[in-house]
Amino acid sequence: MMKNIMIEIEYDGTNYSGWQVQPNARTVQGEIMKVLKKLTGKDITINGSGRTDAGVHAYGQVATFNMDSNIPIDRLPLALNSNLPKDISIVNAKEMPKGFHARYNAIGKRYIYRIYRNRYRSAILRNYSYHVYSKLDYEKMEKAAKLLLGTHDFRGFMSSGSSVEDTVRTIHKLDIINKDNSVYIHIEGNGFLYNMVRIITGTLLEIGSGKMPVDHINKILEIKDRSLSGHTAPPQGLFLDKVFYPLTH
Amino acid sequence: MMKNIMIEIEYDGTNYSGWQVQPNARTVQGEIMKVLKKLTGKDITINGSGRTDAGVHAYGQVATFNMDSNIPIDRLPLALNSNLPKDISIVNAKEMPKGFHARYNAIGKRYIYRIYRNRYRSAILRNYSYHVYSKLDYEKMEKAAKLLLGTHDFRGFMSSGSSVEDTVRTIHKLDIINKDNSVYIHIEGNGFLYNMVRIITGTLLEIGSGKMPVDHINKILEIKDRSLSGHTAPPQGLFLDKVFYPLTH
Repeated sequence: MMKNIMIEIEYDGTNYSGWQVQPNARTVQGEIMKVLKKLTGKDITINGSGRTDAGVHAYGQVATFNMDSNIPIDRLPLALNSNLPKDISIVNAKEMPKGFHARYNAIGKRYIYRIYRNRYRSAILRNYSYHVYSKLDYEKMEKAAKLLLGTHDFRGFMSSGSSVEDTVRTIHKLDIINKDNSVYIHIEGNGFLYNMVRIITGTLLEIGSGKMPVDHINKILEIKDRSLSGHTAPPQGLFLDKVFYPLTH
Repeated sequence: MMKNIMIEIEYDGTNYSGWQVQPNARTVQGEIMKVLKKLTGKDITINGSGRTDAGVHAYGQVATFNMDSNIPIDRLPLALNSNLPKDISIVNAKEMPKGFHARYNAIGKRYIYRIYRNRYRSAILRNYSYHVYSKLDYEKMEKAAKLLLGTHDFRGFMSSGSSVEDTVRTIHKLDIINKDNSVYIHIEGNGFLYNMVRIITGTLLEIGSGKMPVDHINKILEIKDRSLSGHTAPPQGLFLDKVFYPLTH
């Protein structure tokens, strides 16, 4: 019988050209589809909650797919994991009602961005953080974060090249957390534009280091011009932490 | 003028055959010596506080060497780091009194061992933890840890193949910490035998999972036979955290 299956995926994005299948590139989606083909003999398309770029990691990417197989659902993670490369791990699997879709049914996401704050670069965190040593005024960064909360047109925080038309999004939470020689930016919202978390991070860093005043945030939100916001923080500090769905699922 | 220099080194041991220079193998010591040769034109031998095995990491390995160079000491970390591979980082450099030696002057070390406790393996921590999902009785592990504290002959916790004769060591601290889906074993002592931390970890895990009784520790300490202790936990969970020197240095 055809089942609609949801899997949760942790991956280290370092050695991938991102989530999405592409010709002649190693991608996370592509690796999982290869293993599903091996296990079932069929071409199964999996739908992720959204793309992640090359070098970006995930603790809880979500994907759905239809599968006609007699592998019991609670055995599926191990069956997939023993065939997947070590830098991809299926950490949960669940059967969902027909029609449930990882992207269309998602109501929000949480990302974590890690900034490493030591004087010298980290050998161990080189692929999992952005090394920034310059002095940062956390109070200013927190004030700026508060201005980003709520519903705004975030066009000024979107990389060009995106074809999205509706650029209004809601940020529910934006916390700046000091821990383990690092600053973590936790950001939750109903959806994110292309490179939005990385541009917000770059902008907060420029505010923290005094290159931009706090209320520059309001100007970016008002004028909606990418050239006004900060640099795009590099991919390796970014983690897709969780995708949210309505409680009914 | 010849200076005696101490450096502190962070490294990701994943892609190295350990610390110590070996013919035809990539080692951390070898990489640093290559860069010193490049910067000074001279063959400089560096002395580490001790070896680490292939796959073992360090936050604070210490090494000393004599160098006749006009590179200012506070520029040395950056000069080395910009020539070293990204998985090695010099995080401190200091000029020391003549004769100070990273190994002979060390009075203790701290290691951290990370055990990852989720049901499924971690993609992101695959090279930085030991995945153990089975139920663990932390109370038993803590009781066992207490029995290891103090001065004992740890021959039963040493891998064969070591030529060390005096196998008496003192463990000052052995903490078991639950954090971030992991159990961390923090262990401090005046010195450690070959594979001692990894065998202690394996033994504590066997006690935690009920395969060995807590007081088996006393038997191992008494009979001093490696075949009585637990398995050698794998290298990738182990971090050399800090090397201690007398306050006078």
